[in-house]
Amino acid sequence: MTRRVRNILFIMCDQLRWDYLSCAGHPTLETPNIDRLAARGVRFDRAYVQGPVCGPSRMSYYTGRYVGSHHAIWNFVPLRVGEQTLGDYLRPLGLRVALAGKTHMEPDRPGMERLGLSPQSERGMLVAECGFEPFDRDDGIYPSLFGKRIGTKYCEYLRKRGYEADNPWHDFANSAAGPKGEILSGWSMRYARLPARVRQEDSETPYMTRRAMELIAAQGDKPWCLHLSYIKPHWPYVAPAPYNDMYDEGDILPANRVARERDDMHPVYAAYGKVRESQSFSRDEVRRTVIPTYMGLVKQVDDQLGQLFAFLEKQGRFDDTLIVFTSDHGDYLGDHWLGEKEMFHDVSSKVPMIVYDPDPAADATRGTVDRSLVEAIDLVPTFIEAVGGTPPRHILEGRSLLPLLRGARPASWREAVFSELDYSFREPRLFLDLPVDACRAIMVRDARWKYLHFDGFRPMLFDLEDDPAELVDLGADPAHAKVRDDLAGRIFTWLARLQTRETTPHAAAEGWVEKANKGGILIGQW
Amino acid sequence: MTRRVRNILFIMCDQLRWDYLSCAGHPTLETPNIDRLAARGVRFDRAYVQGPVCGPSRMSYYTGRYVGSHHAIWNFVPLRVGEQTLGDYLRPLGLRVALAGKTHMEPDRPGMERLGLSPQSERGMLVAECGFEPFDRDDGIYPSLFGKRIGTKYCEYLRKRGYEADNPWHDFANSAAGPKGEILSGWSMRYARLPARVRQEDSETPYMTRRAMELIAAQGDKPWCLHLSYIKPHWPYVAPAPYNDMYDEGDILPANRVARERDDMHPVYAAYGKVRESQSFSRDEVRRTVIPTYMGLVKQVDDQLGQLFAFLEKQGRFDDTLIVFTSDHGDYLGDHWLGEKEMFHDVSSKVPMIVYDPDPAADATRGTVDRSLVEAIDLVPTFIEAVGGTPPRHILEGRSLLPLLRGARPASWREAVFSELDYSFREPRLFLDLPVDACRAIMVRDARWKYLHFDGFRPMLFDLEDDPAELVDLGADPAHAKVRDDLAGRIFTWLARLQTRETTPHAAAEGWVEKANKGGILIGQW
Repeated sequence: MTRRVRNILFIMCDQLRWDYLSCAGHPTLETPNIDRLAARGVRFDRAYVQGPVCGPSRMSYYTGRYVGSHHAIWNFVPLRVGEQTLGDYLRPLGLRVALAGKTHMEPDRPGMERLGLSPQSERGMLVAECGFEPFDRDDGIYPSLFGKRIGTKYCEYLRKRGYEADNPWHDFANSAAGPKGEILSGWSMRYARLPARVRQEDSETPYMTRRAMELIAAQGDKPWCLHLSYIKPHWPYVAPAPYNDMYDEGDILPANRVARERDDMHPVYAAYGKVRESQSFSRDEVRRTVIPTYMGLVKQVDDQLGQLFAFLEKQGRFDDTLIVFTSDHGDYLGDHWLGEKEMFHDVSSKVPMIVYDPDPAADATRGTVDRSLVEAIDLVPTFIEAVGGTPPRHILEGRSLLPLLRGARPASWREAVFSELDYSFREPRLFLDLPVDACRAIMVRDARWKYLHFDGFRPMLFDLEDDPAELVDLGADPAHAKVRDDLAGRIFTWLARLQTRETTPHAAAEGWVEKANKGGILIGQW
Repeated sequence: MTRRVRNILFIMCDQLRWDYLSCAGHPTLETPNIDRLAARGVRFDRAYVQGPVCGPSRMSYYTGRYVGSHHAIWNFVPLRVGEQTLGDYLRPLGLRVALAGKTHMEPDRPGMERLGLSPQSERGMLVAECGFEPFDRDDGIYPSLFGKRIGTKYCEYLRKRGYEADNPWHDFANSAAGPKGEILSGWSMRYARLPARVRQEDSETPYMTRRAMELIAAQGDKPWCLHLSYIKPHWPYVAPAPYNDMYDEGDILPANRVARERDDMHPVYAAYGKVRESQSFSRDEVRRTVIPTYMGLVKQVDDQLGQLFAFLEKQGRFDDTLIVFTSDHGDYLGDHWLGEKEMFHDVSSKVPMIVYDPDPAADATRGTVDRSLVEAIDLVPTFIEAVGGTPPRHILEGRSLLPLLRGARPASWREAVFSELDYSFREPRLFLDLPVDACRAIMVRDARWKYLHFDGFRPMLFDLEDDPAELVDLGADPAHAKVRDDLAGRIFTWLARLQTRETTPHAAAEGWVEKANKGGILIGQW
């Protein structure tokens, strides 16, 4: 039997909630192209990221390891030199492994220098880019307001198209125009409904889609893994016409929040409620202004994927390409009185996860919804296995999804997923007056419960069967003490089983006794 | 005030129990030279290693990090490329950091190759030697019986001295002679009382002591950190004359074991009881034969240290050298029906720890016994601080002992120590029919209790106040459920607080909110 999968198209949105797709049940946001991918593949309905923040989540996607193992525990915490990534696994299998878009990778520069790795060398460049050839890296957020000229490929492109500015990303793609032509910065959410100062085709999502097509076309029949990583619908919440005006407040979902969530609020949750984005999104005016544009940005992604999929079809790539569509985390958008992400409610920690497998072995599962507990770290082993490699189980902590995709129900599957947060960088630490070493939180979610461990504070607990909207925190309820103990035990076991032997394959441990005896290490011989 | 400490002499024995020194109370083994060091410094009476096995223990000593952080979790599990060690910290402070003796370091060769680090380059050599310049590396165990010629400096030395063999380490230094001159291998403990086939001055301990003196003399006034790391009294239990015959069975301590330890024995403990070394040491004949020689080997170390200390005195090095005397773990020698180490009774996990600090600030503590809970990982920050550096607390997990040495009682000190084991390589895993991923054990010891967590099995518990000999396992006693819960909670907290931000100093987290606002990341602004 010949292997069908030769290429991998790993599509990621940034900050796309699991439920903002029509195939996931959104009542007013139509995403027909993503839905069609789901109809040809499997939609995993319980997929969780390993940390609901860009950097740590992505490093888990790229390393196949929990945040507690790769240690890039928040944005701007560099990934330690020596951590292996997707590129380290797929390149030796003959694939070009390239990036179009965002990774949020922060290189471990002191570590590289210590080991003599120059970022200018090919090896050093790959280490600095967490294994991706940066065909077009664009992390998408260029906040500098200090007049520094931004030199990304996208900014160069904008300038070539006539959008001249030191920071055209900000001044054109992520700002609107006022009545007198003045720049209204997208950093202020009040302008979200105004159109961006770029034409639709020059905005970020279409630009990056075209870049992906260029690479795929140039690659011809040579195998590739392309990480197409859109920055949108991440803030600044600014969309070009017509997407800024495609939805209005009548189209948005009501906020999933109730007053009683604020009674006896968990201290860390309460601290997150105090940050600016939570305060803003707790106001209806903000939701009414921002969410229609957020929806427009998702719609734009869907339209662009329609073009990309048509292109792939024409190139014959649907026959030999495994395609994943996912996100790095969600967006509270005012649910639970919060903005942004970081905390662990489903709107933040759960993501869309659609996998299309061209192999005929996957025909039986096409169009199905799989409710297995899936983690972001499952993609690396899935990719390796799909192109014929063997996932190194002494390093990777995820499980290949191929058996699920190909209808071979594994004898056992994981019983819980885990996600982590270190909030030491953020305001909540200051509100709570904590040292930076005491800001770790860990989520475990099993078939029924979601339990959140907070260092130094009581846990939170949700019954996802009785309370799927996660409105009732049972973390201090005496009737649930036993459930909490059991779930804390799950976290204990998980912590104690994080990989600790990355330099030694299992076989070396398994074969040691025989080897030592043969080698003449005769300990205890009389 | 001028800083007095310019040099560091870091002396380690291998497999030396905490209680086989006269200053620690051994009734028949006199160690006057080590005792004199204790009289000039501080003897820490509750010092624990982070893993009672050579490799993991040493990697904790050299990295200043728990085994669960550095991941060299058993012998022959390479230390991941990128882990920083003593040399990385002390060399930039101007010290030559060199090794005479054993480290048990196993380089991460695939990791080095991946990053383009050649073991032939200086940088690569230091990575491969966990940061030590291998002035004379000798790991001491050369078991190969297949006629491979051993080429260590010590073996070359032996050959020069007329001990000609492919493996003179084995054939001369660690074997005895039979009545017809035949080689009686030290691998068989029955020959322990016979003298080694080398003269005393050509055996391992004096050889390495002389090497240390050569380096120190050559260094003159240039600052250095020397790791003098003796292989003895580690097996093969063979001593040169007169040390083979210095003690007899009348001098040995009675075995610390009672029949009731075998009632309702913990499964992992029971499995360790079945291995060859435990079976052997459970026989009185073995103890009577081996322990006198073990004592002789300790005595030889003490005699050699007497010479070394006299040399240091003459060179003026007692004025400016911080001296540590310790061990990488103990030796059961039949206590608790076990041989070797690995399990967590004090004879295995607790070590001698004597620190001499030449600074006058330490005068008040000279000759004292400090009962603070101390860990092997405390040495790296102690050394850094002693020579004027700042221990990086986002990487290191130990605490500098300088405040204790200099009589400034810190406001708080740790309340518990931790030690770890992964027995996946060993027979007990086979006896218990476990997968290699389920063989982790974790010890916590606080002021009163010692609690052992075993993945998949009940815990063990000892009350060190009521039962300092650790003969009564309370791990299944219903009356102690609450104590066990509390101690399991300590391990949980410890696991959840292992370092996860090694690439980012605390200040970066502490300063982030201000930096982000200044930089124009205006999340949630209306």
